[in-house]
Amino acid sequence: MVGAREIELASRLADVAGGVIRPFFRARFDHESKDDHSPVTEADRAAEAAIRAILDSECPSDAIIGEEYGEKPGTSGRTWVIDPIDGTISFMAGRPIFGTLIALLEDGWPVLGLIDQCINKERWIGATGLVTTLNGKAASTRACRELAQAALATSGPQYFSQHDGEHFMALAAQTAHKRMLFGGDCYNYGLLASGHIDLVVEAGLKLHDFAALVPVVEGAGGMMCDWNGDMLHAGSAGHVIALGDPARLEDVVEALACAH
Amino acid sequence: MVGAREIELASRLADVAGGVIRPFFRARFDHESKDDHSPVTEADRAAEAAIRAILDSECPSDAIIGEEYGEKPGTSGRTWVIDPIDGTISFMAGRPIFGTLIALLEDGWPVLGLIDQCINKERWIGATGLVTTLNGKAASTRACRELAQAALATSGPQYFSQHDGEHFMALAAQTAHKRMLFGGDCYNYGLLASGHIDLVVEAGLKLHDFAALVPVVEGAGGMMCDWNGDMLHAGSAGHVIALGDPARLEDVVEALACAH
Repeated sequence: MVGAREIELASRLADVAGGVIRPFFRARFDHESKDDHSPVTEADRAAEAAIRAILDSECPSDAIIGEEYGEKPGTSGRTWVIDPIDGTISFMAGRPIFGTLIALLEDGWPVLGLIDQCINKERWIGATGLVTTLNGKAASTRACRELAQAALATSGPQYFSQHDGEHFMALAAQTAHKRMLFGGDCYNYGLLASGHIDLVVEAGLKLHDFAALVPVVEGAGGMMCDWNGDMLHAGSAGHVIALGDPARLEDVVEALACAH
Repeated sequence: MVGAREIELASRLADVAGGVIRPFFRARFDHESKDDHSPVTEADRAAEAAIRAILDSECPSDAIIGEEYGEKPGTSGRTWVIDPIDGTISFMAGRPIFGTLIALLEDGWPVLGLIDQCINKERWIGATGLVTTLNGKAASTRACRELAQAALATSGPQYFSQHDGEHFMALAAQTAHKRMLFGGDCYNYGLLASGHIDLVVEAGLKLHDFAALVPVVEGAGGMMCDWNGDMLHAGSAGHVIALGDPARLEDVVEALACAH
């Protein structure tokens, strides 16, 4: 069970990560420097190290999976999954729509998720059995009576294989395509949880990209699943749907199954 | 000539527009409401009306071109060009990367431009003969020694005709395509002026979309032109290049001229 203690800890981890990340945001990036020393890489690593130090000290028996420093096994049955900077391209370009992702898994399933935007100071928290919050206020997805009204977001066409891209475009053609959004990464899922976007569809997400999103979206009244409408699991090959109005699930899965 | 008076006035117009726009940002948007009454349309119209009221009172002989209320002729040879909310799709989705655009043309050429992001409180101001500023501090584009290093941004693939899209993709293939950015509208040009993005390439821009961008980009050391490398004018059919490092112009125009 997730309680106040875990939520407080996750919030503290995000506070620490934000403090590490902020000074690197909009640091001038010299094209000549090696990728290994780009500000985003430095910020990513430093933030994850700071989070891990706290977890090692306060929850030594929990496992940790981080984007930068890999996997640390545990014995408690609980796993913290961390992506210090999701949306590195936005970060590098100076757009304040990247996020820090922190999830807690119990028996492999995310029971707590946090999306933090440390520049605008926006934090979505979702946990099993609780209503999702944005900066402490209840968040909820919005109704969407027809797929044709749905505002659809995805991080970028370049993340799809040609095959996936054809299926995505078949879906996009049935949504409010004039309002289609590119870019945004985890921030799109927060905006979906707050009722400003109806649908996010992506491919190629890894566990650390989507674990934190599930409790946030589901605690706001939405749902997450794979492109077949099945429950996500670590091996879902990153084909992810987030839907604000679960009543549209069948329409979305059906449209995705088509391709021209 | 543009002086302190025009800059002060443009800033005041942006302050007023921001005050009108902010309450509409992230207002819950009911899919059932007519497009005419969406929060973005209401905000757009109210902001432009507020700007026009000030201009009518303080500069009655200046012409005005606004996205929402069309053209008002003038006798002074000066024209204010206004787009209260550039990036309406971002606005509707709750992303704080839209902007208010205000330009002053003299004899048809933009001599003053302002990009204002009223949620994050970021304001770029450019004027002929002056260094561009972001919130009062000098802004400058960054060097880009090879096209292969360039971070390229564009508002979305859906804005290109198939023909334009093929030429854009030919260019994109020669840039740092893993760092390609979609979405962002006018905000991309501000980030280019501040040295975080190297290249923005778009089609379909109208005068009110690009007039304000020219002084901002050029006063920061960058350049703007059409897809042939020629100077922009009201009839450029909206094929716009913004380049942080003018030394890359030939590479960009050459790459754009190719298509697979």
